[in-house]
Amino acid sequence: MKNNLLLVLSIVLLFSCSKNSRSEDNHVKNIDELNIAIKQAKPGSEIVLANGIWKDVQIKLYGHGTKEAPITMRAETPGEVFIEGESYLHLGGDFLIVSGLYFRNGHTPSSGIIRYKIGKDSTAFNSRVTECVIEGFTQPSRTKIDRWIEFYGKDNQLDHCYIAGKSNDGVTLLVYHDGNENTNNHHQIVNNYFGPRPRKGGPRGETIRMGDSKTSLSPGRVNVSNNYFEACNGEVEIISDKTAYNSYTNNIFNKCEGSLVLRHANFGTVDGNIFIGGDESNFYGGVRVINAGHWITNNYFYKIRGVEFRSGLAIMNGIPMTPINRYRQVSDAVIAHNTWVDCKSPWQIGVGQNIASAGVLPKSEIRSAAPIRTTIANNLVYNSQEDKTPVINYDDMDGILFKNNIIDNGGSQYSTYDVFKNEKLKMKQVNDWLYVPENTQNQSMDSVFVGFDFGKIDHDLLGDTRAKNNRVGAINKVASAEKFVIDKKKYGPKWFSPEKAITKPNVFTASSAEGDLANNIKKAKSGDIIELSDEVYTIGTSLKIDKEITLRSKGTDKVQLVFKVPTNSPAFEMNPKGVLRLDNLDIKGENSSLAFGILEQNMSSAYNLFIDNCVIEDFGHILKATKGSFADSISVSNTTIQNCDNGFTLAAEEKGNYNAEMVTFVNCKFINVKSDVINFYRGGYDESTIGGFLTLSKNTFTSCGGKDKTGTLIKTPGIINVLISGNIFKNNPVKLVALLWGEKNNHELNNTIERSGQMKVEQQRKLDLMY
Amino acid sequence: MKNNLLLVLSIVLLFSCSKNSRSEDNHVKNIDELNIAIKQAKPGSEIVLANGIWKDVQIKLYGHGTKEAPITMRAETPGEVFIEGESYLHLGGDFLIVSGLYFRNGHTPSSGIIRYKIGKDSTAFNSRVTECVIEGFTQPSRTKIDRWIEFYGKDNQLDHCYIAGKSNDGVTLLVYHDGNENTNNHHQIVNNYFGPRPRKGGPRGETIRMGDSKTSLSPGRVNVSNNYFEACNGEVEIISDKTAYNSYTNNIFNKCEGSLVLRHANFGTVDGNIFIGGDESNFYGGVRVINAGHWITNNYFYKIRGVEFRSGLAIMNGIPMTPINRYRQVSDAVIAHNTWVDCKSPWQIGVGQNIASAGVLPKSEIRSAAPIRTTIANNLVYNSQEDKTPVINYDDMDGILFKNNIIDNGGSQYSTYDVFKNEKLKMKQVNDWLYVPENTQNQSMDSVFVGFDFGKIDHDLLGDTRAKNNRVGAINKVASAEKFVIDKKKYGPKWFSPEKAITKPNVFTASSAEGDLANNIKKAKSGDIIELSDEVYTIGTSLKIDKEITLRSKGTDKVQLVFKVPTNSPAFEMNPKGVLRLDNLDIKGENSSLAFGILEQNMSSAYNLFIDNCVIEDFGHILKATKGSFADSISVSNTTIQNCDNGFTLAAEEKGNYNAEMVTFVNCKFINVKSDVINFYRGGYDESTIGGFLTLSKNTFTSCGGKDKTGTLIKTPGIINVLISGNIFKNNPVKLVALLWGEKNNHELNNTIERSGQMKVEQQRKLDLMY
Repeated sequence: MKNNLLLVLSIVLLFSCSKNSRSEDNHVKNIDELNIAIKQAKPGSEIVLANGIWKDVQIKLYGHGTKEAPITMRAETPGEVFIEGESYLHLGGDFLIVSGLYFRNGHTPSSGIIRYKIGKDSTAFNSRVTECVIEGFTQPSRTKIDRWIEFYGKDNQLDHCYIAGKSNDGVTLLVYHDGNENTNNHHQIVNNYFGPRPRKGGPRGETIRMGDSKTSLSPGRVNVSNNYFEACNGEVEIISDKTAYNSYTNNIFNKCEGSLVLRHANFGTVDGNIFIGGDESNFYGGVRVINAGHWITNNYFYKIRGVEFRSGLAIMNGIPMTPINRYRQVSDAVIAHNTWVDCKSPWQIGVGQNIASAGVLPKSEIRSAAPIRTTIANNLVYNSQEDKTPVINYDDMDGILFKNNIIDNGGSQYSTYDVFKNEKLKMKQVNDWLYVPENTQNQSMDSVFVGFDFGKIDHDLLGDTRAKNNRVGAINKVASAEKFVIDKKKYGPKWFSPEKAITKPNVFTASSAEGDLANNIKKAKSGDIIELSDEVYTIGTSLKIDKEITLRSKGTDKVQLVFKVPTNSPAFEMNPKGVLRLDNLDIKGENSSLAFGILEQNMSSAYNLFIDNCVIEDFGHILKATKGSFADSISVSNTTIQNCDNGFTLAAEEKGNYNAEMVTFVNCKFINVKSDVINFYRGGYDESTIGGFLTLSKNTFTSCGGKDKTGTLIKTPGIINVLISGNIFKNNPVKLVALLWGEKNNHELNNTIERSGQMKVEQQRKLDLMY
Repeated sequence: MKNNLLLVLSIVLLFSCSKNSRSEDNHVKNIDELNIAIKQAKPGSEIVLANGIWKDVQIKLYGHGTKEAPITMRAETPGEVFIEGESYLHLGGDFLIVSGLYFRNGHTPSSGIIRYKIGKDSTAFNSRVTECVIEGFTQPSRTKIDRWIEFYGKDNQLDHCYIAGKSNDGVTLLVYHDGNENTNNHHQIVNNYFGPRPRKGGPRGETIRMGDSKTSLSPGRVNVSNNYFEACNGEVEIISDKTAYNSYTNNIFNKCEGSLVLRHANFGTVDGNIFIGGDESNFYGGVRVINAGHWITNNYFYKIRGVEFRSGLAIMNGIPMTPINRYRQVSDAVIAHNTWVDCKSPWQIGVGQNIASAGVLPKSEIRSAAPIRTTIANNLVYNSQEDKTPVINYDDMDGILFKNNIIDNGGSQYSTYDVFKNEKLKMKQVNDWLYVPENTQNQSMDSVFVGFDFGKIDHDLLGDTRAKNNRVGAINKVASAEKFVIDKKKYGPKWFSPEKAITKPNVFTASSAEGDLANNIKKAKSGDIIELSDEVYTIGTSLKIDKEITLRSKGTDKVQLVFKVPTNSPAFEMNPKGVLRLDNLDIKGENSSLAFGILEQNMSSAYNLFIDNCVIEDFGHILKATKGSFADSISVSNTTIQNCDNGFTLAAEEKGNYNAEMVTFVNCKFINVKSDVINFYRGGYDESTIGGFLTLSKNTFTSCGGKDKTGTLIKTPGIINVLISGNIFKNNPVKLVALLWGEKNNHELNNTIERSGQMKVEQQRKLDLMY
């Protein structure tokens, strides 16, 4: 840990010193001047990009600097050189440094934005990109694949950058390991700020990936250290490590809905990281372990509530003689000196065991090999309230040596598995998320197991030596913990802050005069509220929603919006980043139109829909997802939906993708919705995503589905999480209310079904695998 | 190369120095004294084993020496302490040295003879076994599995040992990599002499194996350097490398029927090795490449005639998304600066491609992935006579970069594939097997391709720098080559020589007096000849053959041997190491007896049978193999076999094993052999062995097979190499003469078949896979 810090520091110092030693200032104002300057660059050259907007610039920085005299390309003023439009920065050669650029309002026309390779035979080595920002530089189409940072070569570095807002297909940062010039590469990914990446609704939404299954034999030796990850929610893996000997140390994962996954990695180091969760999501994850030889030490987990793949510590079952792209058995892992505080079932062992699915899956998919030769020792689990299942064992834990692990389970004794010593601990709360056991005399806390090679766990999470007064858990000394604060200045560029000023929403009033509502929506800033003051609004044009807008009746009575839009047009047109909140409205349409339409193309970001206390009626379709579109949340409550030809159709994707993440109906009435009342579809199975959530609670469905050719009222093929509870289904002329998938997280309970066919649960389902 | 040498030297020096610094002499005479001495040993202790035979001693040398003061256990006089019977040497602890022991006349009752581990928690580290011999210390039963040397722990060494004669199941030397205490282990296997290991007739006959497919992700970092391998013929792999980062440098492989196989290895180093073949076998092999990142440099290959798996350079095809125990695609390999002289089709690329077998094999067995990202450069192929196919391409070579490779193809131009530059070279012959291009001006030889990281190929095979006057091929300077000799003293113990005095065979004469022949056989030394001087010998007891014996008629007329042995007994009882040569004899039996019987149990070594110019008649069975028995060669020529109930039955094995390697009948007459005329069987398919050879050439078969229930005359199910040519089959009442396996090496030609059913070839056959 300390060594890595020193290494990073010395590299930083090295680069800074050398920059000043021999510079030659080439001030350039456009891409042509830049290209000339690049062509002329020699060791020590410094190219300065003039402040301003650089549009459609495809920079190929090729040159051969030296260790002592690198070639530098920098912004005139850091953060005031804006790269926009169809642009990228590709590097090739040796000893290059780039700093201070701000990528925004655009996207790359290539496979990557920052790429440590220009072409064949022009890979970059010993090169560094620092103090840059890539913010929302995402493809217009979510389905277009790219990476934002593509590492090739050896000994390259990305540091002090801010990277956020990728919503299209493709991992954010990919380290390539194919080819001798790219492997054993010792890249440094340090002190960066990986800001929010929204849920993607399909695979390839990781923030960092190392290689792929085909190059998983390669020694990576990438160092990912001292980075800050915030709301990296793209998919179930924040980091997907697929090569060997990589190192993840001293990173902070703040409210990320995923895990650090040692997917095809071997002999990985995961040391001194902090995983902060919270009560508001059950998807925050920890570390997931697959393959051989990982050391997971000195990590701290707070309120990680994920289950199975996303649990605080997920040790997976492997597939005997697995194909290289599936799951190798866990062996030779050491999980020591970690702390879990108020996590939900933090230790899940044998995750992914699916022997019961042997009938529907090929043998090469059956994870029946429990972990072996693994040591779990000197860890601390603290729960302020009892967790009935701090350990979930899916298979066989005989291959694991449990030694000197301590639990304080909300004061209750835990004894289901003999893996803990129960203790009553006094915990010091240092801040919102950091709890440390007081350094009072506690023999169990001081009694530390010494396994093979444990001497190398020589420091704790906060850098204190373990040579003396060594303790169970991630932190040795309360005094050090008390001094600990997250210093956000350490992460990302000095000149940039991701914190946006929080402004109070404006409240406008729109009258029923023609165009007034549309105008108000247009002028509103994201987050603003528009109140409707008249009784009836007749609207002839679709309303475009491309920001967060709340529409509500000014009084307590429901204002009526009557849409008379052109055939096949929507009442509301959802655009990228559109968030529409409808409150206390009566919305009427025609059977030639949709209530909610979504752009057919360039739906670059997710939209959201929140409807409460409304009536929606007389439409041809309530909502119809388009291919490539994605709703993070569709939430409808206390609302009546009636007399429509079709309801909610979220079924335009294939290959493991799907059109919405969280779809919720609570306390709604569906009356006479003739087809596709709810049709939520996922074609193809992939484990890297949540897989869609449908919650139906306390709704009534009456006289619906009469024209649905499938004979099924609620269609959820392939959706992983379905909860249908407390609903009333009455007089719906269908064969099935729903056909659920028992093996996955599909449940129904307390529903009343009258003259509406049956609710069926199919335990195992034949999968259309995506790999 | 040089570094490794230095390392070895310094370890040797270190051990030698420290031994003298602080020794305490405990002279022990038996196992009880030894055990006491071991118990009392402390750093610096020296335990001396008294000269003589130590029988049934199971030595557990446990102790903690230090780097400066190791614990030593040595022979009073090196080579005069004989370990016999049920014995072993297991080591546990740190810094132990054992030297001077001679294991013979016995076997281990444990899994290993020399084992760097006593039990759980008593593994050995930094420990060394040196100057020892293990000779023929093989299990009484060939089917009993053991290893002779089992490496566990880290930093252990085996050096200057002689190891030969393992004929039972199990690799000779196995390095275990499972568990953190055994991986990344830096073991040294140096300066050993691996003497003959006979053909095994089934898998697990390697001389060295590193790990297994399950631990193939582990960094091995074992160094196998400066060893001499001679006639290591156990199976198709001399060395089977199944972990990463192992290094094979400066070894000599002299007439070994196998290859150095990078089976599940990754990033292996194969540098500066010499592979010497010859005209007498088509099974001598080179290097076989699978998986990622290997560097194969500076190696020299002479008369390597193996094909496919055993070719001089075999680059295999992989299986897409292979199971971990099968074949991963070759990638990122570098094959540079090697020399092949007078090899047969030395470059075989895409070996194992079996797309045509897609109908009979599961998808996970189809090797359709050709090598990628591989460089073959600066190599030299020299043929004194033209080789029509120096390169055999089984699939697609587009993934390989060929650069600056030179061929002199017996003076002919080679152009089938554009991978060579044709040159006329003047070669200097240094000795029997070493040819070097003269240092005359040759621009092509001096024009060297510099690929990525080629700087690390900084020396040639003989240690000369490549920094200046670098050349294509393994050797830079003729002058250095001229000085090169194989110095056998470098290998194995100083006190031991594997060379046995060659004695002239004695020739005895046996009369027909009762017991005289048996007595003569008894008194004969291996290799002796017994001549039969009378006309008829009537023999009532089986003759035991446990050495090499030749029986022949003294005159030109055939002497008749009439065996009247007890029911179910054999005329000749073949024992381990029995080699029987029968020449010009008429051997008569009864239908209650066998001509050649094999021990039912403890058939610890192979037997051989050579029959020329004989008549064998009237037996119940000619030869019937027993389970566990193995004939290296059964060769019958110019012989009549007649009036027997059964012929040659070699069908007592399963699971990839088989009962004989080379079975040959030339110019024989089979008359009225009623069943199992030849029944040569292999149940289960495994690629690690030759798979049996049956050659039938110019024989006649008349009135045979009448009582064979299978209706097939020549049965060869599962046998890989079958050649039936120029035979006459006449009046044999069978349906099939033979059913051959076209996909494997089964051929028939120029046979005459009259009233004997058909000869059929089945191209593809469903396999019973052994893995």
